[in-house]
Amino acid sequence: MKNLKIVQIGSAGHYEYALPALEKYGFDLSAIAPGCEGEFMHRALRDLGKLGYSPVIYNDWKEMIDKETPDVVIINSIMCYNAEMSIYALERGIHVFCEKPVATTFEDLERLKKAYYKANEEKRVCFCGMYGITYTPHFEAARRLIRSGEIGEVRLVTAQKSYRLGRREPFYSSREKLGGMIPWVAIHAIDWIYNLCGFKFKSVYASHSRVANGGNGDLEVSAQMIFEGENGAMATVSSDYFRPAGSPTHDDDRIRVVGTRGIVEVRSGMVYHLCDGEKIIENVMPEHDLFESFCLEISGEGICDC
Amino acid sequence: MKNLKIVQIGSAGHYEYALPALEKYGFDLSAIAPGCEGEFMHRALRDLGKLGYSPVIYNDWKEMIDKETPDVVIINSIMCYNAEMSIYALERGIHVFCEKPVATTFEDLERLKKAYYKANEEKRVCFCGMYGITYTPHFEAARRLIRSGEIGEVRLVTAQKSYRLGRREPFYSSREKLGGMIPWVAIHAIDWIYNLCGFKFKSVYASHSRVANGGNGDLEVSAQMIFEGENGAMATVSSDYFRPAGSPTHDDDRIRVVGTRGIVEVRSGMVYHLCDGEKIIENVMPEHDLFESFCLEISGEGICDC
Repeated sequence: MKNLKIVQIGSAGHYEYALPALEKYGFDLSAIAPGCEGEFMHRALRDLGKLGYSPVIYNDWKEMIDKETPDVVIINSIMCYNAEMSIYALERGIHVFCEKPVATTFEDLERLKKAYYKANEEKRVCFCGMYGITYTPHFEAARRLIRSGEIGEVRLVTAQKSYRLGRREPFYSSREKLGGMIPWVAIHAIDWIYNLCGFKFKSVYASHSRVANGGNGDLEVSAQMIFEGENGAMATVSSDYFRPAGSPTHDDDRIRVVGTRGIVEVRSGMVYHLCDGEKIIENVMPEHDLFESFCLEISGEGICDC
Repeated sequence: MKNLKIVQIGSAGHYEYALPALEKYGFDLSAIAPGCEGEFMHRALRDLGKLGYSPVIYNDWKEMIDKETPDVVIINSIMCYNAEMSIYALERGIHVFCEKPVATTFEDLERLKKAYYKANEEKRVCFCGMYGITYTPHFEAARRLIRSGEIGEVRLVTAQKSYRLGRREPFYSSREKLGGMIPWVAIHAIDWIYNLCGFKFKSVYASHSRVANGGNGDLEVSAQMIFEGENGAMATVSSDYFRPAGSPTHDDDRIRVVGTRGIVEVRSGMVYHLCDGEKIIENVMPEHDLFESFCLEISGEGICDC
């Protein structure tokens, strides 16, 4: 792959998604900047240092973009700033690898979409959200099975996100900054429903609650949604921060997809395929690297779609 | 327990719930009648015959109730008749063990409630719905754990009913006769949420679909619901008839109850308790017989509440 010049804004999210490809291809990660005043960059600098990177540190991310004129910007500051940063980069024809939610208000989302389409009028400018969980081997295996038509037409889906609450940084206490539990946590499950099943969302009814949030201000700690799709298909999502501290893993991600000819489930990192006469544990696919796929697409050497 | 005189109307539902107690106590099951024209009673008569019962067969259930003046009537004809039969019995001070749904219209439900309260003005007349699954050992174990306060305050629940469709009797094709998939199938999951968790329902949004129902007329084959409870608690139910014919069991009943101090799940007949530091498979309780509990309460020798 051709060398890419990359800069990074912030470190509050999943910039780690980019590290394996940085190590593999030795891209030119030239600079890094906090996304807002007081954002500590120690963790990111330490992780990059381990790979031999010592990027220039800017205080002002706009100045960094203007001076560095990178090919790609990795955006993962506090969530409410994602849209503004993405728009700034897209307007300069820079590819964007952005933490989710990519916007925390409908207004920002509309502005971002406009900026994306406008950028793409002149040349191909890529934008990718950090939906890394969808590209883990078990979810990819389920996706391939469902997309192959093996379970027939998808009629009903249930998906789950359950996390330990743990200690959260102060910005989690501000709904304005975080964007809420549904855009931050449940969004993964919504993405699975869309990405694995090709579900076309027609309507949604949702509920969330801050009760028992451990003193984390505005932070919602439980949320559920019900979606209607095309031709009477339906889906629900449940998400919570009540996974006990001593649980074997941080998360308990699940999806159950009911088709007219079979049922596929992802649970505890395993894929179960229930069809006539047998229950099979599928062999999962090798890990697919989201950031690598994104860079391959930028370079015209692949398509960022597992 | 004192001897009870019992009659049975219909055989479309789960009259089998009464068989173990009939065998154990040798109650006087004196008569049986179809609930509507053309309802075959062969299966019920065969099951009763195995226990040594040869009840009088009436063609008219009203005549049977009037002539037999039983202590208890077991009602399980086609679902749309449950309310009328129950009201008829309650008006005569007869205890009722009734298939669910106990009514298929809101009007019938109101009439039934009125008849129940009126009957109880003069003496104690008991009415019990056939929510037998709630009283199986695994659900009872989960109930005890949740009700003990072990997982703290219940904040979020997800429940599932999944059945094989198989071959259904013709009345399943008529929504008017069956009452719909939610009152017939999903109702069990709703009962678990109520019964296991003490969930107080404040609102519901629901969706169902007849798509891919295998030529079964009106029959809905997928349904989902989202409930809001008190203090921001929430619950979802998913139900479907898409369990493949070759699945290891007819049903796939599940519930996951998320509390502020732990999580309880029932899945594949097992109970999982996730709390700090460990995941325990609970030893389940001995089977609790719903009809026996009902008869004990009628006889003043117990309370029909596991």
